[in-house]
Amino acid sequence: MSDAARSCDHEGSSRKQLISQYQQVRKQTMELTQGLSAEDMMLQSMPDASPAKWHLAHTTWFFETFLLQPHLAGYQSYDEAYQYLFNSYYETVGDRHPRPLRGILSRPSLQQVAGYRQYVDEAMLQLLQSSTADIEAAVTIGLHHEMQHQELLQTDIKHALSLNPYALSQAGTTAEHSKSAANSEKEPEFLPFKGGLAFIGTNAESCFAYDCEQPRHQVFVPEFSLCERLVTNAEWLDFMADDGYQRPRLWLSDGWATVQKEGWQSPLYWQQIDGQWFTIKNHKRELLDLAAPVCHISYYEAEAFARWRGCRLPTEFEWEYAAQFVETEGNFLEQGHNLPQPVCGDGKSVKQMFGDAWEWTQSPFIPYPGFSVPDGALAEYNGKFMANQWVLRGGSCATAAQQMRLTYRNFFYAHQRWQFTSLRLAK
Amino acid sequence: MSDAARSCDHEGSSRKQLISQYQQVRKQTMELTQGLSAEDMMLQSMPDASPAKWHLAHTTWFFETFLLQPHLAGYQSYDEAYQYLFNSYYETVGDRHPRPLRGILSRPSLQQVAGYRQYVDEAMLQLLQSSTADIEAAVTIGLHHEMQHQELLQTDIKHALSLNPYALSQAGTTAEHSKSAANSEKEPEFLPFKGGLAFIGTNAESCFAYDCEQPRHQVFVPEFSLCERLVTNAEWLDFMADDGYQRPRLWLSDGWATVQKEGWQSPLYWQQIDGQWFTIKNHKRELLDLAAPVCHISYYEAEAFARWRGCRLPTEFEWEYAAQFVETEGNFLEQGHNLPQPVCGDGKSVKQMFGDAWEWTQSPFIPYPGFSVPDGALAEYNGKFMANQWVLRGGSCATAAQQMRLTYRNFFYAHQRWQFTSLRLAK
Amino acid sequence: MSDAARSCDHEGSSRKQLISQYQQVRKQTMELTQGLSAEDMMLQSMPDASPAKWHLAHTTWFFETFLLQPHLAGYQSYDEAYQYLFNSYYETVGDRHPRPLRGILSRPSLQQVAGYRQYVDEAMLQLLQSSTADIEAAVTIGLHHEMQHQELLQTDIKHALSLNPYALSQAGTTAEHSKSAANSEKEPEFLPFKGGLAFIGTNAESCFAYDCEQPRHQVFVPEFSLCERLVTNAEWLDFMADDGYQRPRLWLSDGWATVQKEGWQSPLYWQQIDGQWFTIKNHKRELLDLAAPVCHISYYEAEAFARWRGCRLPTEFEWEYAAQFVETEGNFLEQGHNLPQPVCGDGKSVKQMFGDAWEWTQSPFIPYPGFSVPDGALAEYNGKFMANQWVLRGGSCATAAQQMRLTYRNFFYAHQRWQFTSLRLAK
Amino acid sequence: MSDAARSCDHEGSSRKQLISQYQQVRKQTMELTQGLSAEDMMLQSMPDASPAKWHLAHTTWFFETFLLQPHLAGYQSYDEAYQYLFNSYYETVGDRHPRPLRGILSRPSLQQVAGYRQYVDEAMLQLLQSSTADIEAAVTIGLHHEMQHQELLQTDIKHALSLNPYALSQAGTTAEHSKSAANSEKEPEFLPFKGGLAFIGTNAESCFAYDCEQPRHQVFVPEFSLCERLVTNAEWLDFMADDGYQRPRLWLSDGWATVQKEGWQSPLYWQQIDGQWFTIKNHKRELLDLAAPVCHISYYEAEAFARWRGCRLPTEFEWEYAAQFVETEGNFLEQGHNLPQPVCGDGKSVKQMFGDAWEWTQSPFIPYPGFSVPDGALAEYNGKFMANQWVLRGGSCATAAQQMRLTYRNFFYAHQRWQFTSLRLAK
Repeated sequence: MSDAARSCDHEGSSRKQLISQYQQVRKQTMELTQGLSAEDMMLQSMPDASPAKWHLAHTTWFFETFLLQPHLAGYQSYDEAYQYLFNSYYETVGDRHPRPLRGILSRPSLQQVAGYRQYVDEAMLQLLQSSTADIEAAVTIGLHHEMQHQELLQTDIKHALSLNPYALSQAGTTAEHSKSAANSEKEPEFLPFKGGLAFIGTNAESCFAYDCEQPRHQVFVPEFSLCERLVTNAEWLDFMADDGYQRPRLWLSDGWATVQKEGWQSPLYWQQIDGQWFTIKNHKRELLDLAAPVCHISYYEAEAFARWRGCRLPTEFEWEYAAQFVETEGNFLEQGHNLPQPVCGDGKSVKQMFGDAWEWTQSPFIPYPGFSVPDGALAEYNGKFMANQWVLRGGSCATAAQQMRLTYRNFFYAHQRWQFTSLRLAK
Repeated sequence: MSDAARSCDHEGSSRKQLISQYQQVRKQTMELTQGLSAEDMMLQSMPDASPAKWHLAHTTWFFETFLLQPHLAGYQSYDEAYQYLFNSYYETVGDRHPRPLRGILSRPSLQQVAGYRQYVDEAMLQLLQSSTADIEAAVTIGLHHEMQHQELLQTDIKHALSLNPYALSQAGTTAEHSKSAANSEKEPEFLPFKGGLAFIGTNAESCFAYDCEQPRHQVFVPEFSLCERLVTNAEWLDFMADDGYQRPRLWLSDGWATVQKEGWQSPLYWQQIDGQWFTIKNHKRELLDLAAPVCHISYYEAEAFARWRGCRLPTEFEWEYAAQFVETEGNFLEQGHNLPQPVCGDGKSVKQMFGDAWEWTQSPFIPYPGFSVPDGALAEYNGKFMANQWVLRGGSCATAAQQMRLTYRNFFYAHQRWQFTSLRLAK
Repeated sequence: MSDAARSCDHEGSSRKQLISQYQQVRKQTMELTQGLSAEDMMLQSMPDASPAKWHLAHTTWFFETFLLQPHLAGYQSYDEAYQYLFNSYYETVGDRHPRPLRGILSRPSLQQVAGYRQYVDEAMLQLLQSSTADIEAAVTIGLHHEMQHQELLQTDIKHALSLNPYALSQAGTTAEHSKSAANSEKEPEFLPFKGGLAFIGTNAESCFAYDCEQPRHQVFVPEFSLCERLVTNAEWLDFMADDGYQRPRLWLSDGWATVQKEGWQSPLYWQQIDGQWFTIKNHKRELLDLAAPVCHISYYEAEAFARWRGCRLPTEFEWEYAAQFVETEGNFLEQGHNLPQPVCGDGKSVKQMFGDAWEWTQSPFIPYPGFSVPDGALAEYNGKFMANQWVLRGGSCATAAQQMRLTYRNFFYAHQRWQFTSLRLAK
Repeated sequence: MSDAARSCDHEGSSRKQLISQYQQVRKQTMELTQGLSAEDMMLQSMPDASPAKWHLAHTTWFFETFLLQPHLAGYQSYDEAYQYLFNSYYETVGDRHPRPLRGILSRPSLQQVAGYRQYVDEAMLQLLQSSTADIEAAVTIGLHHEMQHQELLQTDIKHALSLNPYALSQAGTTAEHSKSAANSEKEPEFLPFKGGLAFIGTNAESCFAYDCEQPRHQVFVPEFSLCERLVTNAEWLDFMADDGYQRPRLWLSDGWATVQKEGWQSPLYWQQIDGQWFTIKNHKRELLDLAAPVCHISYYEAEAFARWRGCRLPTEFEWEYAAQFVETEGNFLEQGHNLPQPVCGDGKSVKQMFGDAWEWTQSPFIPYPGFSVPDGALAEYNGKFMANQWVLRGGSCATAAQQMRLTYRNFFYAHQRWQFTSLRLAK
């Protein structure tokens, strides 16, 4: 499997490339806030989410805490108090501001936070002039960390603005009929895979990967088949029309309890107006594109849909096995769509493995055999979340392209829906 | 009792005076937001409170809804959507944005809300050129309504900023010793009142009063005595030192449950640093002034303190009976203190009846005999709150002077502490 | 007002009479548990309620703690552990078993508790042979305390069994048409009262009264009129038919929030089956008697109904003023009806002032002027509950006749409905 | 692997053996209630638990619903209402009484439920006289279902009685020093296993197994080693002494949140009295046996302990791989210990794989490849719980011996502690 080499092409090993990447990632984050006011960037609409301003500050805090303070001689903090305010969950680094109260931070102002970013960027460029391998490794983590927050920034602000009836009504509604690909009504094909004893994960020798993707190890994957594309909105409407949200037998027990408690009747952000279904794109109501992949569904909904169709979700091993033959290309953040896009299936190869929307797998997020937590504060990165969450694979339209790779394991709780999440059927 | 006439001096019956009052009140509201950023004005720190921006918009909505729309020919709404967004609780006027979600309104922006105020002010001045008695009566209510929100705006933003450790630390701490009046350590005197069959409330014939202050009626008030001044911070520290917050016998049953649940050990905003007690003034920590009235206490705390001292709280009838001989003057909003101030007691007359801090009374907020709800939307003003709340009297350092009068009945729930609330002992 | 003397007729001052009363009250409690199994007597269906077994034990604990332990030489406790288990809320007497966990006490068994009652009764009779005035006073309190618990025992078990679909279905349904008095459809008359400066409360000189009924004091009662009878079920159905439970304008703000949260559409225990309304009597569904007083309503519902009818609730002072001319007789526990009964109104005098159902008044439960808490543990009896509750007057079909008197003040929270509560209109 | 055959020895294929097994299992259930009163058997101390009376009825309901009603000609239900009352979670069978309200069922009485059991047993014996293979298969499920409830009955009543201070104090305390095996202080050895491609699960051809244990399939198990015995109480005290419950770095993120919220400082039921640690056995406080396996711990605690020791929990595949060489024998229900017992480890073979206490594994409860849900109501048995729960293996001192087998997968949520749960270290 040549994937490891392949997915690293964009990561320069030279210092110059790293500096360039640093500048590009940091700039991309700021670009994601275009069109948002200081007031918008205060919003925290639920404890799971964070204000955009907080994302800007926290990603900067990461570089200050793990790079500048330990490694740049004579570095003066921008503001000592930020240490406490913008720590997220690193218990080893000290106390932190309570997560559900991030929305209370009207001060420091957006302007101050922008100043913080600039101050740290200047110091980082100085540090990068004479960096060591250790430093470069930590910077790489910092950039991948920031790309993760780029995605959260997008999904968090989408959620917050969706709750403001005024913001939505001001944005107007796009009611054009979708130009679905002609073949979207064709039944998609299931492509067979032989399986066998396969290698899963990576040892991160030649390129970056998180601890939870390691070590590379063997897994026995029985024969299986995968649907060539993601489930579409049209198929989801069929599920709804067949009382999918009303029949307990289709659901996991915890899933049914959640449906009842939350009153779910459709994916998140869907709204029916005068008989037509709309969703939200770029903070605006838009007519549902029937040929596009369904999005903003929980694990419970994905699992119930699969059962309704007489199928199941793939395991993360099946997914990785199948994806090794696919280019790491797709509808990522840089395409600017901000919603999964339709795809023309031809029944000859798997489509949409990368980009468009995260694919829920049937695999809980647990350690790979031989997993070990690295030393130091960054040890808290992934290992402590290895309970009660589910692996998603493949990235979404809000994921930065260079963040994605074959072995990437994203994870969320089964009830969460505010990420760009979808599903692919397996048998 | 000449009070009714007296307290109306500042209210002009002529149109010109009303216009002048309109301009003054509207300007005062904006002045209260000086030093606050658009981000600060987004904050809603608890369901009881509202964002400052919301107060600006809601008070404006009042004039648009009850004056301009029905009475100004050809008036065009600034924005139709504001009708829904900035309604507070007037069920008759239509649906409204849920109260606990007022903090989600990043849009409309502060700038748009400021534009709204200006737009409505211009239209109002036009309307006031040719107003009728009916219109002038409604405008007067609108101004008194706005003055109520001026006080809430101050207490709401104080609460929100108090939760931001950064805002407090940036503001610094004032640790100067208080210049308490020399006689603050003298035991205050209790002044005797004869009581008897007294007239309470007003018929609002010559000046403005809310429905709940009406009608004027007879109450039999037994003999009583009132402490000449409010309870001081020094006295409250004695209560704390005597385990006041630890002894269930001193408390009402509901009060003790609240103390346990909330973990109260002192008034709101108090913090002990290196053995010294501080409170918050103008969003800044300040050394506690021992001679000043205690402030930010719940009814439960007031009641427990009184029991501890072998006294009780006055009834609202006793308070009004005693206050009829006192000028409606004191430490109001216009003094700019933003905290209750010490007073020199001389044992010859009651002090601090008006201004400084609201005084909890032992009287639940219920209708006066013969109370009737006025017709129309404004009927919802006070009557629907006549359960489970307690009457407070006298106004505070955050109350506009012209809002106060002898018969004014403020009301809050027994557990609420974020208003400028204090107590006076009675026997 | 000769009432005080009158209402004491049944209380003997002589020792012999007290012994007889002791035996009668204690026996009456046990009789109320006829038909209940040990399993039934375990039930605690909500934190407000207690298991029947707990009532049996707690009332006995009262005599052991306040009479036998301090006053009977050589008395040995039945079981030391009961001291902790069966204390209700007397903070001064020591720690106690948490109220919401009373239902966990499968041990001691009902048989042990019955043994406890017998053991204490024998010791009490011994004590009463040579009692002093102090002891007799405390015994009298104990008996009145037990009568209060007799009423709670009935309402608590009614609530618990109402939640068991099996118990209800086993009991069967009484679907006979009600034999309403012919004149029940006549509009009831309002009887006028002149009011004036009245004496309210008692000094408890010649007969027993709780601390909260004291001292006797003057209140100015303006002219008023009272409906001759309680509101009937037929009238309540009119309220429901007129969308009484759907119109926010009819409700107090807290009341409307409660209606929404609880989903109230009718009084407690009402159920519509095949177009007919039923309620529960003796743990059995029974066709609603249209002429009988409405029952099991909250203060909020009573208040909304009165507003709907253009009336109001009486104050407790009006009620007491009107009731002073009425015999303390009515449908009490001893009549065995277990539901309020219809009354024939003749428009010449007030009916149903005593018995049938408690009448919500517009008066919050607060201290009378000059109220003072007695010393000792019994001091906790009523004073600590003087916040957020409302006074009810007149007793119910579950009240022991000798417990009732003109000045009796019962009190509950505005949302509580499981007592036998009704209303009388005032103007 | 000869285990499948082996573990089935006790299951007779002949009708006579099935009848004998039926009688034995049903009798064993009743014997577990010895010493419990009708009042004890009402207790439901948390929504996770059920009253003992409910377990008696529900297991009987299973036979009535799935055997007698469909298969015994002319069968009359004991009581039609039981259908609703004693359904647990079978959505297909109809509505059911809400789980958290099972404790409200004072009626039917224990006596009636005992009558129900006898009535159904008689009818079942009649049915079994002429049973078919289908019927026998369903009866076998019913008996295994009842054995599961035998274990829950024990753990549920243990939890309920542990909350009653009176019950505990009456039972007395056993303070004898434990007679720990002399070698308990020896460091246990880790036994190496080679791993490889292994068969896991069963096809249930020759003996009973639940759907979730099927189908038999291949899993690649890397080399590993297992501790020869379970973690002991002595080792757990070391963990506590080393601030195990105070150090967030040792815990999963969800685990640490649970520790904080619940205030956990030790396993469930542990209490320190005068410096000595006690636990509960047979509803009685007993001195902690230091050499015995730790018990009543959550997954979170097991996982944190393993991390603290530099180890990890085994996967369920490792466990099953290692257990295939071990006899299915151990300290089961029939031994009557009611607490895990010490074991003498010799470092030559794995001990305590079966019995004593359930072993938390690192494996979430998800379907085996090729898992399919059987048709009919019994389809709801396990599949719907395949989310957010963790697999436990090996049975406990409360498990009936014939219920256990190599492939048995028990499952609970990570925070649950009231089962007999322990851990074994792996590397």
